[in-house]
Amino acid sequence: MPADPRAAVYRQIDRDLALHIETVLAMIRQPSISATGEGIAGMASSLCERLRALGADVEPVPTPRHPIVYGRLDSGAPRTVLFYELYDVQPAPPEGWLVPPFQPAVVDLPGHGPSIVGRGAFNSKGPLCAFINVLEAMRRAGVPCPVNVVFLIEGEEEVGSTSLPGFIRDQALSLRACDAVFQPYFGQNAAGQPIVYLGCKGMMYLELTCRGDTWGGPTKREIHALHSAWISNPAWRLVQALATLKEPGPLERTAIPGWYDDVRPPTPWELERLDELAGQFLPAVPLQEQGALRYKLPEGATQREFLAAYLWEPTLNLDGVWAGYTGSGSKTVIPHLATAKLDIRPVPNMDLERLLRLLRVHLDAGGYQDIEVRVLTQVPWSQSDPDSGAVRSLLAALREHCEVPPQIWPRSGGMVPHHLFTRELGLPVAFGGLGHGGRAHSTNEYITVEGLRLHEKSVAAFLYAFADHQEGA
Amino acid sequence: MPADPRAAVYRQIDRDLALHIETVLAMIRQPSISATGEGIAGMASSLCERLRALGADVEPVPTPRHPIVYGRLDSGAPRTVLFYELYDVQPAPPEGWLVPPFQPAVVDLPGHGPSIVGRGAFNSKGPLCAFINVLEAMRRAGVPCPVNVVFLIEGEEEVGSTSLPGFIRDQALSLRACDAVFQPYFGQNAAGQPIVYLGCKGMMYLELTCRGDTWGGPTKREIHALHSAWISNPAWRLVQALATLKEPGPLERTAIPGWYDDVRPPTPWELERLDELAGQFLPAVPLQEQGALRYKLPEGATQREFLAAYLWEPTLNLDGVWAGYTGSGSKTVIPHLATAKLDIRPVPNMDLERLLRLLRVHLDAGGYQDIEVRVLTQVPWSQSDPDSGAVRSLLAALREHCEVPPQIWPRSGGMVPHHLFTRELGLPVAFGGLGHGGRAHSTNEYITVEGLRLHEKSVAAFLYAFADHQEGA
Repeated sequence: MPADPRAAVYRQIDRDLALHIETVLAMIRQPSISATGEGIAGMASSLCERLRALGADVEPVPTPRHPIVYGRLDSGAPRTVLFYELYDVQPAPPEGWLVPPFQPAVVDLPGHGPSIVGRGAFNSKGPLCAFINVLEAMRRAGVPCPVNVVFLIEGEEEVGSTSLPGFIRDQALSLRACDAVFQPYFGQNAAGQPIVYLGCKGMMYLELTCRGDTWGGPTKREIHALHSAWISNPAWRLVQALATLKEPGPLERTAIPGWYDDVRPPTPWELERLDELAGQFLPAVPLQEQGALRYKLPEGATQREFLAAYLWEPTLNLDGVWAGYTGSGSKTVIPHLATAKLDIRPVPNMDLERLLRLLRVHLDAGGYQDIEVRVLTQVPWSQSDPDSGAVRSLLAALREHCEVPPQIWPRSGGMVPHHLFTRELGLPVAFGGLGHGGRAHSTNEYITVEGLRLHEKSVAAFLYAFADHQEGA
Repeated sequence: MPADPRAAVYRQIDRDLALHIETVLAMIRQPSISATGEGIAGMASSLCERLRALGADVEPVPTPRHPIVYGRLDSGAPRTVLFYELYDVQPAPPEGWLVPPFQPAVVDLPGHGPSIVGRGAFNSKGPLCAFINVLEAMRRAGVPCPVNVVFLIEGEEEVGSTSLPGFIRDQALSLRACDAVFQPYFGQNAAGQPIVYLGCKGMMYLELTCRGDTWGGPTKREIHALHSAWISNPAWRLVQALATLKEPGPLERTAIPGWYDDVRPPTPWELERLDELAGQFLPAVPLQEQGALRYKLPEGATQREFLAAYLWEPTLNLDGVWAGYTGSGSKTVIPHLATAKLDIRPVPNMDLERLLRLLRVHLDAGGYQDIEVRVLTQVPWSQSDPDSGAVRSLLAALREHCEVPPQIWPRSGGMVPHHLFTRELGLPVAFGGLGHGGRAHSTNEYITVEGLRLHEKSVAAFLYAFADHQEGA
């Protein structure tokens, strides 16, 4: 074994870069589209083969939908890291790609340099393959992995991780024996700054339906609008009900009584992060990226207030609404059905079930007992302890290989199923890594080649830092 | 010439029934779909041929879209009737038809008996062909038509009669020389009672659009909903704006200031009709036909109140609304665009341009200056004088051939372009006839064979009654 195993692994990663690029390309070439099932079984079995070649005891565990690649690589280390990742990708219609999405290639992207372009490069075959590359580099360098690794690689993340909660509850006893969860990703923005999210808001997706019924309206089919003088309209009713959910005005403050009751105030640590983030925040950048001309906050709001809204505002968004005639020209109808899709993004310590009850009570109090509320997706918020060994080790790893200090966000506005780890299993999640990539779910998804190298070093650095960290230090 | 020309014509109609059925079938066999243009030119030219064979001076007059069949059959009579009808039909997807929609046949329909089934049978090739059949029957009986006839047969009624207003304004001088307008239709309901409408509410069709702009929201494309904490949502904004148009509750009373100001109270004559109608009105029938369980009026409303609402309530209906994600499952977006379609049905003496201004003022006052309002269709209300010779002659004709007395409605909730006659030309419109048919714009559109016979007799009777009526009597 080399005198400095960590340095040996870094050298090996540098030496093996060309090989590692090829393993990423190969993994992208194998489609694994969870929405259609295309290539899922093949991907799960080729992953198992590759992990078994490393000495891991791993298998594709059947679930009601797509198998979970689950198992363990034991290196006799005192600590164990639960590696969570996904092997499925979004579908990729070929229009607009520089290369066919499942025939990836290294492309010199303006502004980014040589990059691997293909479906899943960033989300998440790049980081999945890079993690295995690191384990393989350790083997080639003749050094053992400094931690034991439990693999939990699901094939349904892009379709809502529906089998994951049941699997984690079934395996809770063994999973709780792990010391932390690690989900690496290419976490440097285009300017090179590493971003770390300690958690996410989570999300509940709802469908609200108003149908003609005993309250009024046509019940069977849309009818001619000349009857609107004496027959009610479910589309008006849904619009009226939706309008009661919000205070008027572009702030879109939710008007459901009790909605904000459980929002816990920011902790002193979070307020420090907010100040740090506000000092670096350029309000024009997200506006430009999203094609918006202004934020919803009142005139004169500060950078700190913009960010506070992003981090602490629990949202109730109207994703879609439809009823009646939506074609061109003039067709006059009273629809018998009107539907809206909404998403709730909660913040600590809001409970999604409670928010759902408040919505129901509010609709009922407004006389809208008939409006049906259906839950399509439900992922609670999550947040890892910034003082946990996992988070401290991740930050140390990022600092070791990047001169720009990481930005630490208490949470993202997105949705990852980390509550299963933080709240079901009680494990902190280290969520991040170096390297730049982007265009998840879009055309020309990419990671940079230099980002792959940096990412792998940050992954190795995390494993060493976590193996060595002092509890509570 | 026979001693009793009128009786001779009735006998001829009875004798020629089989021939007349065949002419209706032949006219339906020639598609003339204004939405696509299919068969329009052929239909206009075959109509002209048939009318010329009667001695009419008629031609297809080009318009910006479909030709208007226009001309005159002069019989040297003192009075002239302007015959207004349409030769176009709605498209007819073949699913659900008993016979192919453009291969019509006589079918024994349960509850109706032998009937002609095919696209346009009821709306309006049945009445169009029947009117020509009557003129042909007069010729075969050797009697002259008791009035001169000006033909105005348009090919765009089913797509909004866009060329008609210009044409009527261009020809106003000659058209004003007519004494009345006649638009026959199969006006007996399923129970055999003739229904006469003296006019219609008319209709203005609007499209309201809210786009992300300087007020907020994404301006270029829909964006990820995680930004809803700091970027506004055009769908929420449109829903909020729409909700301000209506008082809450199933009555859907319009909340735009000044909206009802110009509604004129019912005249004594209209109130008499209301009482008559209320005495015969069975509230359960329209509910059952429309598949609704209740009217929008408060509990305990009377038959008279139901009918008063139908006749005098100016409506503002939400025909359709759409924004954002409307597919299955969970996709979270902030739409950059939200759209609604609305129709206004005014009553006398409301002015559509004024209502449009009131809507704009109301939106502006609510801070919704950015919401765009586009007018797609605009047809004012119309009402013929019940004391006019045209209306009195029509009622006399119905009574002559039907024992059940006609129901007289001051207006329908629908839309016919009669304002061009009543308000532009100052001519009363006789709108009705005997015979039963139905399922306009739907599958298995039909007229009964017995209805065709009765209809033709009522048409002949109208022409005689109008030729003979005493002014002001």
